[in-house]
Amino acid sequence: MSRFTVHYRLTLFSGESPEERLDTICREQSAELPTDVIAQTGMQHITGRPDNIHQISEQVWSAQIHWPHELIGGEVSQLLNILFGNISMMPGNQITGVHWHTLPDGLLQGPNFGIPGIRDRFDIPKRALTCTALKPVGFSTGKLAKLCYQFARGGLDIIKDDHGLANQDSATFRDRVTACLRAVKKAAEETGSTSRYFPNITAEPQETLHRMEFAAQQGCQGVLVCPHITGLPLLQNLAEYKIPMMIHPAFSGQLVMNAEHGFTAPFLYGSLWRALGADFVIYPNAGGRFSFTEETCHALNSEARKTLDSDFAGSWPTPGGGMQTETIARWLQSYGNDTVFLAGGSLYQHPGGIELAAKEFCGIVNGAD
Amino acid sequence: MSRFTVHYRLTLFSGESPEERLDTICREQSAELPTDVIAQTGMQHITGRPDNIHQISEQVWSAQIHWPHELIGGEVSQLLNILFGNISMMPGNQITGVHWHTLPDGLLQGPNFGIPGIRDRFDIPKRALTCTALKPVGFSTGKLAKLCYQFARGGLDIIKDDHGLANQDSATFRDRVTACLRAVKKAAEETGSTSRYFPNITAEPQETLHRMEFAAQQGCQGVLVCPHITGLPLLQNLAEYKIPMMIHPAFSGQLVMNAEHGFTAPFLYGSLWRALGADFVIYPNAGGRFSFTEETCHALNSEARKTLDSDFAGSWPTPGGGMQTETIARWLQSYGNDTVFLAGGSLYQHPGGIELAAKEFCGIVNGAD
Repeated sequence: MSRFTVHYRLTLFSGESPEERLDTICREQSAELPTDVIAQTGMQHITGRPDNIHQISEQVWSAQIHWPHELIGGEVSQLLNILFGNISMMPGNQITGVHWHTLPDGLLQGPNFGIPGIRDRFDIPKRALTCTALKPVGFSTGKLAKLCYQFARGGLDIIKDDHGLANQDSATFRDRVTACLRAVKKAAEETGSTSRYFPNITAEPQETLHRMEFAAQQGCQGVLVCPHITGLPLLQNLAEYKIPMMIHPAFSGQLVMNAEHGFTAPFLYGSLWRALGADFVIYPNAGGRFSFTEETCHALNSEARKTLDSDFAGSWPTPGGGMQTETIARWLQSYGNDTVFLAGGSLYQHPGGIELAAKEFCGIVNGAD
Repeated sequence: MSRFTVHYRLTLFSGESPEERLDTICREQSAELPTDVIAQTGMQHITGRPDNIHQISEQVWSAQIHWPHELIGGEVSQLLNILFGNISMMPGNQITGVHWHTLPDGLLQGPNFGIPGIRDRFDIPKRALTCTALKPVGFSTGKLAKLCYQFARGGLDIIKDDHGLANQDSATFRDRVTACLRAVKKAAEETGSTSRYFPNITAEPQETLHRMEFAAQQGCQGVLVCPHITGLPLLQNLAEYKIPMMIHPAFSGQLVMNAEHGFTAPFLYGSLWRALGADFVIYPNAGGRFSFTEETCHALNSEARKTLDSDFAGSWPTPGGGMQTETIARWLQSYGNDTVFLAGGSLYQHPGGIELAAKEFCGIVNGAD
C-alpha cells in the first residue's frame, strides 16, 4: 500500500511514552476507533505507521508517520484533515514537515510560477523585488488609485491591496481594480518602468472565485488572498486561473504561535503554502511588530525556496511588517535576492511623500543587483 | 457611525500598558498604519475605539473594542479578518466574545433550525438526542450502510459519517449517501422509529456545495461539515440550502488550545459557530481523550443555548469523544436535555453488537425524559 510521510514533534504528558502518543495519532487521524475494534474490523492497514522515533529532550520526541494514500481520496481537504483534524484538539502535537514527493501524483502542484516563473514574467532576472500595500481601508477608490499611481511612479514592482480592503462601499472591489490598473498603466507610460497591481480577492469562497475571474479579465498580473479566511483548499481552485498568487497570513497565527502545538512557521508558510500553490508567501518579519525570530525567518525562506525533496517551483519569501528604508539593506544582505521586500507604513511616513519614499526604497533594493 | 463590539482578554508584555496594547489592536485590525499617518489621512474614525478596561491579574486585562461597521463591507470573511487577522500573529490576544446584536442587520442569521426548529422537525419535544458516527474510513459502502442500518434499528436519532469519510474509492460520497439513506429507511419501516443519516460533505468549497445539493436532493435531514477545513465563510452559502448543519471541530483546536491567545472555546464553538449557522456544535467532551474541562464544556453549552444578547436560535451542544453508555447518565444530568450525546467507539466495542449497544445507549437517554 502506498503511503505518504509526515514529521512530528511531540511533547509528551508526564508518564506517557512516545509509542503511546504515536499510537493515539495513528488511530485518531484515520479509523478513529479503539485498537481492539480496529483489529476486529480487519482495518489495521488504514491506520498510520510510525517510525524514526528520536528523543529531543526529556519530554520532547520527533517521529514520522506513514499514512495510506487511501485515506486522502484525492482531496486536499481530506489531506488537511489527516494532518491536523482531531489532533488539533490534543495538546503537544506539532507538525514539522511533509514529504511532498510521497503524496499521490497530481494531488498538489506547487506554485504555477514561483521564483523562476515570476522572474521570467516580470523580466527581472536577478535582483530582489519590492512591494507595498494600499491603505487605509475607508479611503475612496480615487484616493487609493492616487496612492497606487504615486507608488508606481516610485518604481515598486508590486503594489498590493491591504488585506483589509475587500468590497467596502468606500472603494468597491471592481471600481478599485479598474482604477488601480489605470493608475499603474499611466505611471508606466510616464516612467517607462512597470508596476503590477495585486487586488485583494479574499471573500467567501464563491465570491473569491468571481473576484479572481474579474482580476484575470482585467489583466491583473497577480492577486492577494488570505486562505486561512477563505479556506485553504480554495487555493487549488484559484490556481486554475494561472494568475500569480500572493498569500497573506491573516487568521493563521494560532497555528504557529505555540512551540508545542500546531505547525512550525517554516512548515506552514514555507512548505504547506508552497505546496498549495503560493507564488509569494507573506510573513511577519523579525524585528517588526510581530513575533518571529530571524532564525525562524531564515528557516521559512529555506523551506519556501529549497529544491530538494520537491518538484515544486520555489515560492518567493515576502517578509513584511515594519520593513523600512533605513533597515532594508541589512535585510537584503540577510535574505538575498530571491526575496520580495514588503514595506507599508514606513513609506507612508516619509516627509517627502509617497513617490520619493518608494524611489528611495527601490533604489536600495534595485541598486544592490 | 455605527459600531460593533468585541471583547478581549489581553496578556501584556512586561512594561506594556493595556492602553498601548489596545491602541495596537485598534490600528492593526483596521487602518494598519502608524498613529501619525492615520492622523494625516484624517481616517481616525476607521479605527477601533476601546473601553471597559479592567485588570484581571498582574499581566492580564479585559477590554472591549467598538469597530466601525464600515470595515466589514457586508462580508463575513472581512468580519473574521477584523476579529483575528493580523493579531493572530501577535501573542497575548484572546477573543472572549462578540455582541452579535451590534453587527449590521442581516450579516449573520444564526441557525436555520437550532434547538426549537430541530425539536419540531424531528418531533422530539423534550428529551435529549442521541448520535453516533459511521466508521472506519476504508470500509466499503456496503459495510457502512450495514452499520447504519444496525444503528438505526437501535434507535439513534442521528447517524453521521465520521468526518474522515469523504469521497474515498472504498465508499464514494454519492454511493454512501444513497445506501445509508436506504438503510435508515428500511430500519424505520421495521421498527417504526426514525433515524436520520447526516453525510459528511466536507471537501474543497465548490465540491462541498455540490455535496450539500446532492444531500438535499436525496432527502437528507442534515449534513456534517468541518468549516475550519472548508473555510468558515462557506457556512453562510451552505445555510441557503436550509438543511440542518452539524459542525465538526476538525482543524480548529489551535484556536482554543492556548489560554493567552486565540478564542475561548465557549466563544468559538458556542458563540461564533452558532452565529454562523451551526444547528449542532460538536465539541470534545471533558473526561474523554481530548482536553476540555467540564467547566469549559458548561460555559460552551451556555453560549450555544443562551437567549440573552442574541436573536439567534440556540445551537445544540453535541459533546463527543469518549462518551460511553456507562457514563451517559452522569453527562445527561450534568448537561441537560437540550444536548445531543454523541457516542462513537464505545458502541463499536459492545460485545452484544451494534444494535444492542445503540439500544442500551438510547434507552438511558430516552428513558430520562
